[in-house]
Amino acid sequence: MIDHLIQHRGGWLKGVGPNADIVISSRIRLARNIEGVPFPHWAKKPEAEHVLTLTKAVFEKTPLFKDSLYVRLDDMDSIDKQFLVERHLMSNEHAVRSAQKAVLINGEETVAVMVNEEDHLRIQAMTSGFDLEATWRTINAIDDAFAANLSYAFKPEWGFLTACPTNTGTGMRGSVMLHLPALVMIRQINRVLEAIAKLSFTTRGLYGEGTQASGNFFQISNQVSLGQREEEILDNIKGVIAQIIEHEEKARQALLSDHREMLEDRIWRSYGTLKNAHIISSNETVELLSMLRLGHDLGIVKGLNAALINELFILTQPAHLQKIEKKKLTANERDVKRAEIIREKLEVLS
Amino acid sequence: MIDHLIQHRGGWLKGVGPNADIVISSRIRLARNIEGVPFPHWAKKPEAEHVLTLTKAVFEKTPLFKDSLYVRLDDMDSIDKQFLVERHLMSNEHAVRSAQKAVLINGEETVAVMVNEEDHLRIQAMTSGFDLEATWRTINAIDDAFAANLSYAFKPEWGFLTACPTNTGTGMRGSVMLHLPALVMIRQINRVLEAIAKLSFTTRGLYGEGTQASGNFFQISNQVSLGQREEEILDNIKGVIAQIIEHEEKARQALLSDHREMLEDRIWRSYGTLKNAHIISSNETVELLSMLRLGHDLGIVKGLNAALINELFILTQPAHLQKIEKKKLTANERDVKRAEIIREKLEVLS
Repeated sequence: MIDHLIQHRGGWLKGVGPNADIVISSRIRLARNIEGVPFPHWAKKPEAEHVLTLTKAVFEKTPLFKDSLYVRLDDMDSIDKQFLVERHLMSNEHAVRSAQKAVLINGEETVAVMVNEEDHLRIQAMTSGFDLEATWRTINAIDDAFAANLSYAFKPEWGFLTACPTNTGTGMRGSVMLHLPALVMIRQINRVLEAIAKLSFTTRGLYGEGTQASGNFFQISNQVSLGQREEEILDNIKGVIAQIIEHEEKARQALLSDHREMLEDRIWRSYGTLKNAHIISSNETVELLSMLRLGHDLGIVKGLNAALINELFILTQPAHLQKIEKKKLTANERDVKRAEIIREKLEVLS
Repeated sequence: MIDHLIQHRGGWLKGVGPNADIVISSRIRLARNIEGVPFPHWAKKPEAEHVLTLTKAVFEKTPLFKDSLYVRLDDMDSIDKQFLVERHLMSNEHAVRSAQKAVLINGEETVAVMVNEEDHLRIQAMTSGFDLEATWRTINAIDDAFAANLSYAFKPEWGFLTACPTNTGTGMRGSVMLHLPALVMIRQINRVLEAIAKLSFTTRGLYGEGTQASGNFFQISNQVSLGQREEEILDNIKGVIAQIIEHEEKARQALLSDHREMLEDRIWRSYGTLKNAHIISSNETVELLSMLRLGHDLGIVKGLNAALINELFILTQPAHLQKIEKKKLTANERDVKRAEIIREKLEVLS
């Protein structure tokens, strides 16, 4: 049912858009609930089914969703669910308990709607590069489509009501996935992350909530969703991210002018290992792909494309490897398959 | 004067001959002294000059040496001397103090004669592969040529007299350079080396006396030169080496059948790093070249040749890099130049 997804790469992985050399993607999610129905954690089975019925009706009648895929999680096995988590189309939390849950994914994989996760609706839009405006336009249109067909739980004095009070208000979280290898290499990253933490921003890793930063990827998002308008929140994020981008650009220039040989050595060694390894862990893969991405962005390694490197971050994850191989794989088998796929994909370019 | 040597590779590096997949080279050296002249460490300057005159006269009149190069060490700078040490054409000890010393090197670099090292003459012959007989024939002919023209210090009851009593008797040391990566990987190497130590054999590293084994290379030689005929000593060495070769072959087969993926991973990663590094130390180079050599010998990496890999061990040493670059290089500059040369040499093959 979802097998065809592996044939394509998500639209947010194109490696294009503003500041695409540093910003992988921009993402906005909205938390919404239906008036008069208990939040998912408190809803009884018929109430949760009612939410599924209501939202499915909206999906089916809304032209925006005509190329979309709609799946109930209890129709999927654990590899399929993990596969969608790995594609950033749903949360780990959503995958764990499947009863009365669903997910809607548009053809481009730039929009995903989780039904009955922490809130009745978690709407997410993702765009390649640093483009929160485009992301906002997309998600706003989807939000309007739901609002035209459903009655949202909303209080004028509080805004949108949500299961967790930290989301009440706009119900919005904006986040930007940044690739900051130079700030890591010159050991300035902690200073930067501490500074933005004071401004009430949260930093997560490549693979979302609860994950450590790895491969020099940092997903930065607002913590506050109450007391500000959506546009103010997004402007805030944009201002902070623009500063981080500037720091990273300066760090890259400093490395190029003061430590070029060391930098080239690290980048080319990473390339050589990726092209030749026969056993590789996912951690090492992420670290090496990060260096390769930097090599591409600095023009040191020619003939690559950002979309291919981005795709490798996704394809080399456990459930993806098992979908490609069409069977369960042990950790050792995955390390072998991962190396094989990386070699194949990079071979095409050389 | 010795600059042209860098254009060629020593004949003992051809990577051919019996058991060339495990045995890099076979080497015999003879220690000889001239009757009535004090050993070099005790000789006064005119006595040492006299040895130089006598031996030079033999070099010049002997047809065997017609393509040879004869140099006095005080005509060379320190890089040139180190260069000859790196090519295994003279000892470190010979290079340290230059006064009244010389070296003769044949065109193939398979014969080298040090004059006024620890003994008046240290004659060395080297052959590619496991072939002590051929090496013995070569060195025997040279020994005869000297004996026909010089009066050797010799006592019928002791044999040839030498500066160090451990060399007295035959004055002969036979040694074989082995590449034993599989025994190292399966952690059997210490057991093997301990066993041969009990049989009065010595193990040295790739770069001769006083060096540690590195890159899985072990130079194994006899310690005893007294009380046995040359042929007996050589037969002894041959027997011991044949056993070690068998152990290494079994270890390689065991790795191929039980740990093929791990083995391929290590070999290909080494290849990838060698082909892509921009800064590389000599230690890392030796380790990675060892893996590449194994990959070639097992047929895992195709299109390489053993002679080229052998040559890289020699070319990537400090004095060689400086001869190639025709100037002094700092350690950092050498690490960069070393990586460049390895990339160039390996590029030709791919």
